[in-house]
Amino acid sequence: VSPGAGRAAVLAIGDELVAGEIHDRNSPWLCERLGAEGFRVEEVRLLPDDEPEIARSLAEAARGRDLVISDGGLGPTLDDVTRHAAARAAGVPLEEDAATLAGLATHWAARGLAVPASNRRQALFPAGAAILANPVGTAPGFRVRVGGAWLAVLPGPPRELTAVFEGALAPWLPQVPGHGALVLRRRMHLFGLSESAFADRVGVWMDRDANPRIGVLAREGILIVKLEARAAGEATALELLEARLAELRAALGEHVFSEETDDLAQVVARLALDGDVPLATAESCTGGLVAARLTAVPGISAVFREGFVTYSNEAKVARLGVPRELLERHGAVSAPVAEAMARGAGERTGARLAVSITGVAGPGGGTADKPVGLAYFGLWRDGAVEHAERRYPAFGRDLVRAFATNQALDLLRTALAGGLRGAPRSVDTGRLVP
Amino acid sequence: VSPGAGRAAVLAIGDELVAGEIHDRNSPWLCERLGAEGFRVEEVRLLPDDEPEIARSLAEAARGRDLVISDGGLGPTLDDVTRHAAARAAGVPLEEDAATLAGLATHWAARGLAVPASNRRQALFPAGAAILANPVGTAPGFRVRVGGAWLAVLPGPPRELTAVFEGALAPWLPQVPGHGALVLRRRMHLFGLSESAFADRVGVWMDRDANPRIGVLAREGILIVKLEARAAGEATALELLEARLAELRAALGEHVFSEETDDLAQVVARLALDGDVPLATAESCTGGLVAARLTAVPGISAVFREGFVTYSNEAKVARLGVPRELLERHGAVSAPVAEAMARGAGERTGARLAVSITGVAGPGGGTADKPVGLAYFGLWRDGAVEHAERRYPAFGRDLVRAFATNQALDLLRTALAGGLRGAPRSVDTGRLVP
Repeated sequence: VSPGAGRAAVLAIGDELVAGEIHDRNSPWLCERLGAEGFRVEEVRLLPDDEPEIARSLAEAARGRDLVISDGGLGPTLDDVTRHAAARAAGVPLEEDAATLAGLATHWAARGLAVPASNRRQALFPAGAAILANPVGTAPGFRVRVGGAWLAVLPGPPRELTAVFEGALAPWLPQVPGHGALVLRRRMHLFGLSESAFADRVGVWMDRDANPRIGVLAREGILIVKLEARAAGEATALELLEARLAELRAALGEHVFSEETDDLAQVVARLALDGDVPLATAESCTGGLVAARLTAVPGISAVFREGFVTYSNEAKVARLGVPRELLERHGAVSAPVAEAMARGAGERTGARLAVSITGVAGPGGGTADKPVGLAYFGLWRDGAVEHAERRYPAFGRDLVRAFATNQALDLLRTALAGGLRGAPRSVDTGRLVP
Repeated sequence: VSPGAGRAAVLAIGDELVAGEIHDRNSPWLCERLGAEGFRVEEVRLLPDDEPEIARSLAEAARGRDLVISDGGLGPTLDDVTRHAAARAAGVPLEEDAATLAGLATHWAARGLAVPASNRRQALFPAGAAILANPVGTAPGFRVRVGGAWLAVLPGPPRELTAVFEGALAPWLPQVPGHGALVLRRRMHLFGLSESAFADRVGVWMDRDANPRIGVLAREGILIVKLEARAAGEATALELLEARLAELRAALGEHVFSEETDDLAQVVARLALDGDVPLATAESCTGGLVAARLTAVPGISAVFREGFVTYSNEAKVARLGVPRELLERHGAVSAPVAEAMARGAGERTGARLAVSITGVAGPGGGTADKPVGLAYFGLWRDGAVEHAERRYPAFGRDLVRAFATNQALDLLRTALAGGLRGAPRSVDTGRLVP
């Protein structure tokens, strides 16, 4: 970090944090975000919901710092005391904000209710504080001077924290002393490549001192590749990033599904909506996860016809027309049944593209022949069916289901990216993709 | 807090922690472990590898505390400065320990090498410190007085941290003042009550100094209520907990769905498996989430027949037999359609109990009449259908879907808990359950 970097501290508030009951995911996010804004985070503190203790720590953390961010403890209940502690640290009284109270009144009136007494405290702010709007919750944040530092107080729920930070705090941060040592970041998201296979292919660029620096995170079959370039000016940083991204694309092309999102469902939805391709799903072991992921995307209703969660054999026969003899001869977890499921989903809904999954999610149900982690995928496109086989490590039911869900989505993606023609690259009787 | 509880602090050391590059998993473990030993952790700090900063924070954390634990920064490289900072905070010089140096020599001799110069620092300890043996690494920990407190310094790698803590520190902890004030915890999980409604009903027991102390966490319609009792002996702590739990049950009875799990799907699965009640789901706006939650439970295949993700009107008609005129007259998001969906799911699968959801998840699709957040639920049980209406705040598609999913699961739960007879308590044309 450049020597001019602003000095920052982060305080996360909540009994559950110091009890070790939940892991603090907000602070790492805030640290990374503050780093990107050119601040150096010199300490993080986790504190219980204890007003005098929080007030004391806020004042202590503000000493010699440019910026202190606290999160948590802004809820409506009596154990939410951060606003009181902040006022105490700032040495000012709390005052009710009329506009926030009116907003709360509207929120509750929509349910035919007056603002409950306990919720009124969410309209209290230290005198002189600037309010930070919360578009996704009832607790706005605020910023206020504490000694020589700026203190920004944000709500604790991660969705609200990020929304308030990005929407109301980040645009103002350039006014804090020390803001602005330039760091630019990009991401690249891959499917179907393990972390070690990635390192084998492009490890030469992964040195810790490389610029851009590359970090990799593996999650449920997806690789999140993070590039971070440092430079004096934006043009240079962008140039460094673009050059390395081009090299990565050339080396890993077919595995890259997005440089914007780590959610395969969003990529599938965009491709399907762009091409106006009606979709359907037929799931056994994933039990609705693929449909749930696709329907999480706003606007998907224009192409998503229907999902089948045919958990029992009866349902596979009745709903998808899987021939009973296939089930008897090959078992429910088999390539022919996966293909018949995909065909049924396609034929019965009129979808041009349909994917099916049948597998052994575990922990029970595995055999020597068909172990936990074995899954078959069927793909229907414009009347043709094919299948893929995958064997996942038996790391638990949730993980097997998550891997299989991403695999199904990636089959849809590659089929759509190929214009629905020909065998998609990733359909083979494949090996583990951890 | 009982007067006897020891006051503790945890300091985790490492540049990567305050850069947000890695999540701190050691501190939650230490907090929980210290809680079990009867200490109250009053703060956690994450600090960079900066000697003066660590020394200052160690001294600060020791003030008024009985026990401070730090972890990290004991490695062989120059950025590992915790031992130097600890000596500075204790106001004593570092001294080389002959036995530790001999151990290092043996370790390196096994590779045919002398101890590298940089690694010799791992044999340095503050004068007067007691060494804490590390059976799984080369960096022993140590404990030393800092002001009126005991400071224990442990290695950062989780395996080494736990080994040194359990092997060398825990057996000695009973000698620290404040050890052993017994803390017992219980949880209670509720659905259908907002945080503020909870506070309105039982706020009288939520005082911070109450024993047991009550904390509340709200998540997607679910309230997690945490009780923490402190007492000299286990019998007293249990008595306190049981008495308060009984009062809470009496006050909130029908909202309590479990004292073990916060997952409604697990409760539904257990009830359905116990009663051998076949289940089905029919989802529109939740797009498979309810089925996915239920099928996440191992063994559910014995009762879960099938899920329908009837996203389009066509699918509602073809798969569930929803009369086309109902869709035209009332729209897809309506009580009659919800009931027809539940009926279709029940009749066509032979399930005794089926739930349906149709709603406006947003962000688009809302009207004045049917705003984003409006959802209807249908419930089929043994041939009868009924419905419920809910209006969720338009806090985003994911949240509306998550709320609706839990509501659907809770309808299944109350129906099963009532033996499938009569109207379940929570089925009414209801109000917001935030």
